[in-house]
Amino acid sequence: MRATRFFISTLKEAPADAEIVSHKLMMRAGMIKRLGSGIYNYMPMGLRIIRKVENIIREEMNRAGAIEMLMPVVQPAELWQETGRWDKMGPELMRVKDRHGRDFIIQPTSEEAITDVVRTEIRSYRQLPVNFYHIQTKFRDERRPRFGLMRGREFTMKDAYSFDRNVDGLKQSYQVMYDAYTRIFQRFGLQFRAVAADNGAIGGSGSHEFHVIAETGEDALVYCPTSDYAANMEAAEALPLVTSRPAAQATLTKTATPGKAKCEDVAALLSIPLQNTVKSIVLTVDADKEEDKQVWLLLLRGDHELNEVKTSKVPGLATYRFATEAEIVEWFGTKPGYLGPINTLKPVKVVADRTVANMANFVCGANEADFHFTGANWGRDLPEPVVADLRNVVDGDPSPDGKGVLAIQRGIEVGHVFQLGTRYSEDMKATFLDENGKPQLLQMGCYGIGVTRILGAAIEQNFDDKGIIWPTSIAPFEVVICPMGMDRSEAVKAETEKLYQAMLEAGIDVILDDRGERPGAMFADWELIGVPHRIVIGDRGLKDGKLEYVGRRDAEATIVPVAEMLAFVQAKLAA
Amino acid sequence: MRATRFFISTLKEAPADAEIVSHKLMMRAGMIKRLGSGIYNYMPMGLRIIRKVENIIREEMNRAGAIEMLMPVVQPAELWQETGRWDKMGPELMRVKDRHGRDFIIQPTSEEAITDVVRTEIRSYRQLPVNFYHIQTKFRDERRPRFGLMRGREFTMKDAYSFDRNVDGLKQSYQVMYDAYTRIFQRFGLQFRAVAADNGAIGGSGSHEFHVIAETGEDALVYCPTSDYAANMEAAEALPLVTSRPAAQATLTKTATPGKAKCEDVAALLSIPLQNTVKSIVLTVDADKEEDKQVWLLLLRGDHELNEVKTSKVPGLATYRFATEAEIVEWFGTKPGYLGPINTLKPVKVVADRTVANMANFVCGANEADFHFTGANWGRDLPEPVVADLRNVVDGDPSPDGKGVLAIQRGIEVGHVFQLGTRYSEDMKATFLDENGKPQLLQMGCYGIGVTRILGAAIEQNFDDKGIIWPTSIAPFEVVICPMGMDRSEAVKAETEKLYQAMLEAGIDVILDDRGERPGAMFADWELIGVPHRIVIGDRGLKDGKLEYVGRRDAEATIVPVAEMLAFVQAKLAA
Repeated sequence: MRATRFFISTLKEAPADAEIVSHKLMMRAGMIKRLGSGIYNYMPMGLRIIRKVENIIREEMNRAGAIEMLMPVVQPAELWQETGRWDKMGPELMRVKDRHGRDFIIQPTSEEAITDVVRTEIRSYRQLPVNFYHIQTKFRDERRPRFGLMRGREFTMKDAYSFDRNVDGLKQSYQVMYDAYTRIFQRFGLQFRAVAADNGAIGGSGSHEFHVIAETGEDALVYCPTSDYAANMEAAEALPLVTSRPAAQATLTKTATPGKAKCEDVAALLSIPLQNTVKSIVLTVDADKEEDKQVWLLLLRGDHELNEVKTSKVPGLATYRFATEAEIVEWFGTKPGYLGPINTLKPVKVVADRTVANMANFVCGANEADFHFTGANWGRDLPEPVVADLRNVVDGDPSPDGKGVLAIQRGIEVGHVFQLGTRYSEDMKATFLDENGKPQLLQMGCYGIGVTRILGAAIEQNFDDKGIIWPTSIAPFEVVICPMGMDRSEAVKAETEKLYQAMLEAGIDVILDDRGERPGAMFADWELIGVPHRIVIGDRGLKDGKLEYVGRRDAEATIVPVAEMLAFVQAKLAA
Repeated sequence: MRATRFFISTLKEAPADAEIVSHKLMMRAGMIKRLGSGIYNYMPMGLRIIRKVENIIREEMNRAGAIEMLMPVVQPAELWQETGRWDKMGPELMRVKDRHGRDFIIQPTSEEAITDVVRTEIRSYRQLPVNFYHIQTKFRDERRPRFGLMRGREFTMKDAYSFDRNVDGLKQSYQVMYDAYTRIFQRFGLQFRAVAADNGAIGGSGSHEFHVIAETGEDALVYCPTSDYAANMEAAEALPLVTSRPAAQATLTKTATPGKAKCEDVAALLSIPLQNTVKSIVLTVDADKEEDKQVWLLLLRGDHELNEVKTSKVPGLATYRFATEAEIVEWFGTKPGYLGPINTLKPVKVVADRTVANMANFVCGANEADFHFTGANWGRDLPEPVVADLRNVVDGDPSPDGKGVLAIQRGIEVGHVFQLGTRYSEDMKATFLDENGKPQLLQMGCYGIGVTRILGAAIEQNFDDKGIIWPTSIAPFEVVICPMGMDRSEAVKAETEKLYQAMLEAGIDVILDDRGERPGAMFADWELIGVPHRIVIGDRGLKDGKLEYVGRRDAEATIVPVAEMLAFVQAKLAA
């Protein structure tokens, strides 16, 4: 590609609404252009990256035996009503009426559409397993679109759907996709991690998220550096940090802690470790009758944080909400800040985190403003609690597999594999005939990759103060040739054209910057755009038969003889 | 590709709602599957064809210097309000509100979006000319979707937009696209014709349609077999069929023609050629005040048909409508069937078609039920008329270029190139700075190809009673290998695998039918699907070292030695 036949449009400054580095750099590099809130044009430079991402995905999906098709963007509401998602999904589901007043949605995902296809197309067990995928435009009407391609409204997703005869088959199809995803992210050249995720009602290890590692990531990933344990924060199991409960030694004592409503402040006032304090979180479970409403008290160690997903899995708490201040006053007789499990005004259900359950002689609120109890002990001062894993793990926690301690890093979710089971086939009556001619529900899995989101995530992981640093496999161009004074020097022009043609013939995705920009502006553009390999051709070097090579991460140029440059670059690309 | 790793789903019968052959065959061949009215899943077999069509388009667009990008499916209404199309376009424009109640459209085309891009991206004449294109999902809310991909609601279109400094530049960009389209349709392997089209307000020869020739086509294409004249019916100029007016000979005579309201019946009754009769068409042009309303009388030769587009170009008739019966009675004093230009009750404006203007001694209605005038003559019996080209050309008419006579064939419109001029850049203030630093409006062209429609059109042109006959370049597979008894015969299996591998290595897009179907069912499937080249491998032939080749249009198989089959097929593919 010659730059003059392409469209390059770089900006010195990012627009004011670009908050994060990937958004800023993609705007500055002319890869995307805003059309509306959360809606972007993919400019020529950006589309090249998208196509490379798509092609890697396509190759690996095909290799894994998945079959590409294409489902529509606009889908009839009837299908979404069959599965109940028409009602369950909130305003992020974009709804539209046609000229006859019939309801449609702009697809955010295609479980319903594919299930509609297979319920007529798949008749016999002989046609199973099968896995269909498509790479298609999606729409999700985010309340507050932001971060460029990271949280846009219109985006491109690859979504695949597997169908199997039974749960064993589903698990096998799932593993095939898990392995394909691993290859896909490896080929992207990105640091990534697959983590076990919560999969709601299905249970088991039926869901994994694939994250691109980045300090700016929204999600906390939990992993064990000395084993293969990895889970997202919602799913990572927290073991008790005290393995057995010490004996009760201190006496329960009501202690004045005026104005100290937080565990940290109480610990400082009393000169005790924060790990000796217990914090109280009050939840409400509503009932049909107001008088059947339950109030629950969850207890966490002072330095720990509540995990809301785990909380919802405690029997009885599936539909919990946080209590209002009025409810707290009604049940505890005091305002938040001094709450505790002892001497509540009305009875509450107490659940202690695993660690709290093993604590002794601890400090908790006294249900009286400006007072805490010290020396509290289970069994003696209050009944033994219900115990559950309620908290987020923290760095240094023991790994649930017993093979080390946990570490935490930040990630950006770009892929998700999920064992759906019969969630959709049941509602939509998608069955096949088994060997005995009996209809059976199809076992379904779904597998998504956020194609356009990959671009943002890759940049969040790979940038410096000059711009983007693309991995070669998804760079808009692999190599840029920057001739200096091509219009003045016949030698530069001749060598440039020669090398350009040689690279094209070698199948290298090369762009020749023939725009005639000054070297400074030219180099700045390509550093911003993030092409990984740059060759500079100038009269000074040519006199000695030399060219310059600069890798995007290199601090200095490498001088390479003219005749060796092609092989030199090929070696870099193969590395 | 192995058939067992692909998804093949054929039907013996097409669903009842499939009216035309391409729709029936695509449904039967498992290429598309209905999701909703005018909304289709592109099944794996269909998607392969779409991708081949897209790739040919992409290659030729790139070769012509156009630059690929991707504009969103969902676009803000504000842009469409700027150009007035938000109001002007009817219910076929799919409108949608987001969660905040803001208006959006699902794009049927992208003039507004691209003009929004260029009005900020294109600053200087140095950046011109430029041509952006995308291949994207479109939506048009057809009132009555039908004919499968021929008139669907959701479809894929390639639309390109060129921007130039001036009209000369636009004409040049237009020609480049015209030439690219010619190459594209040649590469599709389809019989096609580019015809001049009416381009409304712009005038000149600024618009051409590309049609795939098919007897079932909706459009009539006019061309001159002995010259390069070609136009669609709306745009084809009709010359007078009588070059000069004969002398008046007959006397104007009111003749009884009881019950003969049609020219054909009058001619039969009077034993005169239909070509001696004149038919009357009454139009109304409304005005702000009822009393300023005009009634026009258009005169055509009895065997000719009105061309409504030409009619609207007659000065004064831009906003015409057909007159109501009440208006006809009020102006002519009689009901339709016996109307004419002589003795109208109230004054009407008379326009005669070019042929009628040169007629003498003709027959026309007498404005009295059951009576016609015979022997009518211009200048003598009624004033000389305004003359215009009002009619559709017919087969055998003189070609407007004077180089022969016109013929008419049917076509399916699949592409359109259009010189828009400043239609959009004016409304959206899309300017560039010229050499003198003065802002100038961008001159714009637009160029569309209906990607998914191509599939339907190709089939309408190429099918037989067994199924589809794809041109090789857009066939889902170039070659199918059909082994007979692969599971029983080691020899068949070995030769099949060998040939399959050899073909893959030769870069042939081959599918190996390893499903184990009986030969009859297997052949029927591939004839229905329309793969152009089939190789049959069986024990009987192998004994003599022979295989069978059958071209999709061949009546009989060709016997080819095993060792020569690859070269034989390669020669067929190169043909």
